[in-house]
Amino acid sequence: MNAPVDPRFAARCRESFARQKAMTLIGARLTAVEPGATEIALPYRDDLTQQKGFVHGGIIGMIADTACGYSAFSLMPADCSLVTVEYKINILSPARGALVAKGDVVKPGRTLTVTRGEVYSEDGKHVASMQQTLMMLAGTPDTIE
Amino acid sequence: MNAPVDPRFAARCRESFARQKAMTLIGARLTAVEPGATEIALPYRDDLTQQKGFVHGGIIGMIADTACGYSAFSLMPADCSLVTVEYKINILSPARGALVAKGDVVKPGRTLTVTRGEVYSEDGKHVASMQQTLMMLAGTPDTIE
Amino acid sequence: MNAPVDPRFAARCRESFARQKAMTLIGARLTAVEPGATEIALPYRDDLTQQKGFVHGGIIGMIADTACGYSAFSLMPADCSLVTVEYKINILSPARGALVAKGDVVKPGRTLTVTRGEVYSEDGKHVASMQQTLMMLAGTPDTIE
Amino acid sequence: MNAPVDPRFAARCRESFARQKAMTLIGARLTAVEPGATEIALPYRDDLTQQKGFVHGGIIGMIADTACGYSAFSLMPADCSLVTVEYKINILSPARGALVAKGDVVKPGRTLTVTRGEVYSEDGKHVASMQQTLMMLAGTPDTIE
Repeated sequence: MNAPVDPRFAARCRESFARQKAMTLIGARLTAVEPGATEIALPYRDDLTQQKGFVHGGIIGMIADTACGYSAFSLMPADCSLVTVEYKINILSPARGALVAKGDVVKPGRTLTVTRGEVYSEDGKHVASMQQTLMMLAGTPDTIE
Repeated sequence: MNAPVDPRFAARCRESFARQKAMTLIGARLTAVEPGATEIALPYRDDLTQQKGFVHGGIIGMIADTACGYSAFSLMPADCSLVTVEYKINILSPARGALVAKGDVVKPGRTLTVTRGEVYSEDGKHVASMQQTLMMLAGTPDTIE
Repeated sequence: MNAPVDPRFAARCRESFARQKAMTLIGARLTAVEPGATEIALPYRDDLTQQKGFVHGGIIGMIADTACGYSAFSLMPADCSLVTVEYKINILSPARGALVAKGDVVKPGRTLTVTRGEVYSEDGKHVASMQQTLMMLAGTPDTIE
Repeated sequence: MNAPVDPRFAARCRESFARQKAMTLIGARLTAVEPGATEIALPYRDDLTQQKGFVHGGIIGMIADTACGYSAFSLMPADCSLVTVEYKINILSPARGALVAKGDVVKPGRTLTVTRGEVYSEDGKHVASMQQTLMMLAGTPDTIE
């Protein structure tokens, strides 16, 4: 449905993700990159939890935000970078296990792209739903300036 | 303005926050607890960043979500727990420094509470704005079941 | 997928919608009610527009909010009413024509239900995406008190 | 705090608002325009209600969206137009009376502006809170093309 303008889109997403030290910190991995769709896997760890032993809602937001962001980034030209404008997430169920976040582009755009994300637990439970807006910065490297 | 129903509200918030291992992981501290208002400080660390060296938007969401959550929790009775229903965050500026997140109750309620959060960088820049909904679970311990 | 607990769910939704005078004002009609899914049609009218002649974003929000709300209401017991807790909508394209709003339940719940809505124009353009939270009020009539 | 770049900002907002036929339909008036802040008044009318006789949540969203939009528009150059990217609104209380919506700019920007809105009823009750994102279209007339 969504045709990537950059044939290296998957490698470019993986290289960018590898530079996200916050993803390394929490143990998240980018497990799939398709044009306009990505998946991030997060193994369960005790140090990712909130006060009741569930995975912290902010951690759930982190992987959904990132999955959504790379779904948009996969459709972008090679020489641009992307910033999150905003996101909204509903936490649907508490989670105490490994998670997978799936990001999908709803509407790609020259300036703004809208995406959605779903987070599921390993037992198939629907954990969270996100709706997100991103802005493309043309001619801006996706690296540390 | 908001009168706490539990005189131990501040200690209860601090004890709950101390059980949030995800906050320990990222190095966040609960630096202020007033009735209906809290502050969380997050020192800058390289391992909290995204691909361009800025603090990850999901990390910004984590501390705003948590500051907002404890602003609501401070007004709750002693024997309840609280879950995040949803939050929406706008990232206003990229941040490459220490952050502080402030959470404030907009409308306390028996079942639902609405809060807002602001994140600032140490140089005073406005980094993010959140609007959040939480649900009180009456008679439910705020600990691992 | 979603089984209605009230066999009269469709009639109940239509009766409730008919009491929404704001829907009459803008000319919206409830054109489909399935368990957990509804559709609202809005013919184009000049008096629904904003300053540039497009359908007002708030009008788009109104029909999406209502379609989402009735998708949740269709799964509720007969003796309850429902309030919108919050919604978030992205306007994806300006629209200058008839619209249809589709609402779908993402996660039904005893207290809270999460839904999503899409708005399309008659030429098939994707006009808006919504994510919404509703709260069920048990034992509360869905009529003017 | 916010300095308008267009000295005719107030007249420009009023002229634009007057072209919003949807605001005429519901009886809303732009009652105040300051740099980065506006107010819209909505008298109560029976035809603005939902099934329980309260003002329809979508109507509340319409006036908050519009108040927020003009708070951003007041700070824009004369030759631009503005589109709503997205908004999120929490309905805090049911309302059965006249309403006022106040919009305020949180962060003005060259491309994107973030605003917040509050809706109050005539008896002072806090009815709704909004957070909104808008995009400026430079060199684009704010009129029907």
